[in-house]
Amino acid sequence: MDLAARLEEIVGTANVLTGDAIGDDYAHDETLTATPTTPAHVVRPGSADEVAAVLTAAAEAGVPVTARGSGSGLSGSAVPREDGILVSFERMNEILEIDTVNHVAVVQPGVTLTELEAATAEVGMVYPVYPGELSASLGGNVNTNAGGMRAVKYGVTRHHVLGLEAVLPTGETIRTGGKFVKASTGYDLTQLIVGSEGTLALVTEAILKLQPRMTEQATVLAPFPDLASVATAVPKVVGSGIGALILEYIDALTMGAITYTADLQLGVPDEVKEKSQAYLVVMLENNSAQRLAEDVEAVGELLSELGALDVYSLPGGAARKLIEAREKAFFTAKGAGADDIIDTVLPRAALPEFFAKVLEIAQGSQTLVVGCGHAGDGNVHLAVFQKDAEVRHRVLHDLFSAGMALGGAISGEHGIGREKKQHFLDLEDPAKIELMKRIKQAFDPRGILNPGVLFDA
Amino acid sequence: MDLAARLEEIVGTANVLTGDAIGDDYAHDETLTATPTTPAHVVRPGSADEVAAVLTAAAEAGVPVTARGSGSGLSGSAVPREDGILVSFERMNEILEIDTVNHVAVVQPGVTLTELEAATAEVGMVYPVYPGELSASLGGNVNTNAGGMRAVKYGVTRHHVLGLEAVLPTGETIRTGGKFVKASTGYDLTQLIVGSEGTLALVTEAILKLQPRMTEQATVLAPFPDLASVATAVPKVVGSGIGALILEYIDALTMGAITYTADLQLGVPDEVKEKSQAYLVVMLENNSAQRLAEDVEAVGELLSELGALDVYSLPGGAARKLIEAREKAFFTAKGAGADDIIDTVLPRAALPEFFAKVLEIAQGSQTLVVGCGHAGDGNVHLAVFQKDAEVRHRVLHDLFSAGMALGGAISGEHGIGREKKQHFLDLEDPAKIELMKRIKQAFDPRGILNPGVLFDA
Repeated sequence: MDLAARLEEIVGTANVLTGDAIGDDYAHDETLTATPTTPAHVVRPGSADEVAAVLTAAAEAGVPVTARGSGSGLSGSAVPREDGILVSFERMNEILEIDTVNHVAVVQPGVTLTELEAATAEVGMVYPVYPGELSASLGGNVNTNAGGMRAVKYGVTRHHVLGLEAVLPTGETIRTGGKFVKASTGYDLTQLIVGSEGTLALVTEAILKLQPRMTEQATVLAPFPDLASVATAVPKVVGSGIGALILEYIDALTMGAITYTADLQLGVPDEVKEKSQAYLVVMLENNSAQRLAEDVEAVGELLSELGALDVYSLPGGAARKLIEAREKAFFTAKGAGADDIIDTVLPRAALPEFFAKVLEIAQGSQTLVVGCGHAGDGNVHLAVFQKDAEVRHRVLHDLFSAGMALGGAISGEHGIGREKKQHFLDLEDPAKIELMKRIKQAFDPRGILNPGVLFDA
Repeated sequence: MDLAARLEEIVGTANVLTGDAIGDDYAHDETLTATPTTPAHVVRPGSADEVAAVLTAAAEAGVPVTARGSGSGLSGSAVPREDGILVSFERMNEILEIDTVNHVAVVQPGVTLTELEAATAEVGMVYPVYPGELSASLGGNVNTNAGGMRAVKYGVTRHHVLGLEAVLPTGETIRTGGKFVKASTGYDLTQLIVGSEGTLALVTEAILKLQPRMTEQATVLAPFPDLASVATAVPKVVGSGIGALILEYIDALTMGAITYTADLQLGVPDEVKEKSQAYLVVMLENNSAQRLAEDVEAVGELLSELGALDVYSLPGGAARKLIEAREKAFFTAKGAGADDIIDTVLPRAALPEFFAKVLEIAQGSQTLVVGCGHAGDGNVHLAVFQKDAEVRHRVLHDLFSAGMALGGAISGEHGIGREKKQHFLDLEDPAKIELMKRIKQAFDPRGILNPGVLFDA
């Protein structure tokens, strides 16, 4: 029996696509630089058992397998191989359980953040991880360890995945962790699979930690003279213990672009705008309106002391729009013709020095580099405008290298995938790369899961 | 050159102990059931380079290596092998840095929790993980993924380890993570090493996340008619969003023992005591005395609604003593002649059913089983009084099995080590055990690190 026939037997004829039946969407994710690639087969399994049978068939045929959620990734790790199978989780999109006693959601990988948000809101809970793109699937979030704006308070995907059902490339299905926040019972397979970009196992179910949903939110916007003064202010805001939900910096060019695109008036007078090269956005939440008002006042005073040119408490509508516009910064950069984006992470104390380095690298290569990012986390999102691929590669190398020299890592939340792999292999400690390859081998002795992602195939 | 001579060359003659020079303390940890074992050599390295050289020498000689911090572990994972080297980290006990901008501490493995508490208090920060035994070393905490009473608010060791320096059994030294809370740059080696009980690598440095230290604390004690009603109340307290620092349950027998041992008067009238089979202890913290007072009142009202027989706001001195006494519950149980202790973790919603099972297992085997635990985390600490080793083994098997059937895991924070290994091998999914063994092989191809811990040697 040929592979296509076997796959049809497993998931049903309607759920195997081959050749021209494969839509363009399956060929790419949102990475700016990846080459769209149509796989040999798209398979849409309906259960973990079907996923296991698909992996067994693929292993026997020696055919590579790539997993896909919503295709909103930014590292190319969901871009299939021409000779491979793309396993699309679009049919495995059920919220299996919202458990209000253990405070967890149990979801299939194809569930989107939007769907989970709606389901948790109904019961007064929240899954607080908040990456920009809410059409993203939880399976994709788990595989890239997605982060987002609320990480400064709640952490990232990793901190909310309590357990997994996952199919190994050997065809075995395992369950890791559970509906509890801690265990010391052997190696933490959950945490190893989170962020592995589809190279170790296919996630078929995730147990996600929920938080009580706070009722009140407020947003403070503070223009600062420059990025360095924003970076200096951030640790003091975190250290104050006020527990900010969001601490974003936005440079003046990016703020101009996203407010223009969103047609958004924030009420910052021109004379302040002119003096401001960078903005800090602080969002607070609370269950008590009175406590929230007190906290807003305290943060305002603190930011003034820390050199803010002014402090604005944004009305609800404007605040929501600003956060939405910030979420869409990637698409704004894309629309403006950005050639690549990066999301280096580094110790937040090193931000001023890193920003100086960025300026130096940009000027030295006649490249436009602008951005925004999760200031509380030291996670810098930069849009790189440089048409020449060779110069751009060098610029990225230099930016990553500068971040790593300051104690950082290449990616805070987007992942390495195919597209940042060369930089990862060039810059990361070879002993760690070799160790990771041996771990990969422990999971996937035949190397069928996402070859070419993280490492060379 | 023989091994002893080579070790002396690496760490200096004074830092290698052999034969009678090896003190009794090196032969054991605090596990009730482990057989004390004197190793062939105790080595006390002073640097990561020395650790690497020791591991290289051990690998060449094919001699097993066990790491030891303070020896306060409860799973036997720091108990050396008769033919092996015990690497004691007592000389690597420096706090290298308290970084108040990035909010991290960088510590050597031999630093104790007491030392870190003093150093962070000076700068208004706190390392919030709070296992019972404060003489424990951070290296030991990292290797067992230690938990403790504050996990319900702050999580466990795993959630605070941002990066490591670790020596692989191949002799290579790697640095993982960094002074940042997130990364998506290859497999998370930090999280894999945390909780691996000295079987994958020797940790020589850890970057630990700190939190702002809150100034105000308050403690509420609520007697309940039975364990089931405590277990029912706990999810509602967590779900209220009040953010309790501590949520401990203590059964009446254990409460009697620890208050008697500590000579502690809590002001609970006899007529309430007589009706109460279980207590809930709720600790709250805040930077504002007024907010704290409001929260104490709100929790008190909530607990009354949830069936508490009464609610007592404990004065500072009594509260501190009660928490201290609770921390020492293990030693109280030990002093009372407990034959073993376990720390099963399970979904908190399953606690009432688990408690019913425990009673059934205890009565069916004529075993006394009493306890306390981290109710907010579903982490149940039980002292088992049963002299007959065979019956006791069966009781533990049944308790673990009951917990796992309810979606739990064998150990929440103590680890598997040597002493719970047989239960782990008997009860855990063989596919996961085999995968863990392959991961072990990826780190430690010669199997020199802590053989006999987690798996059979």
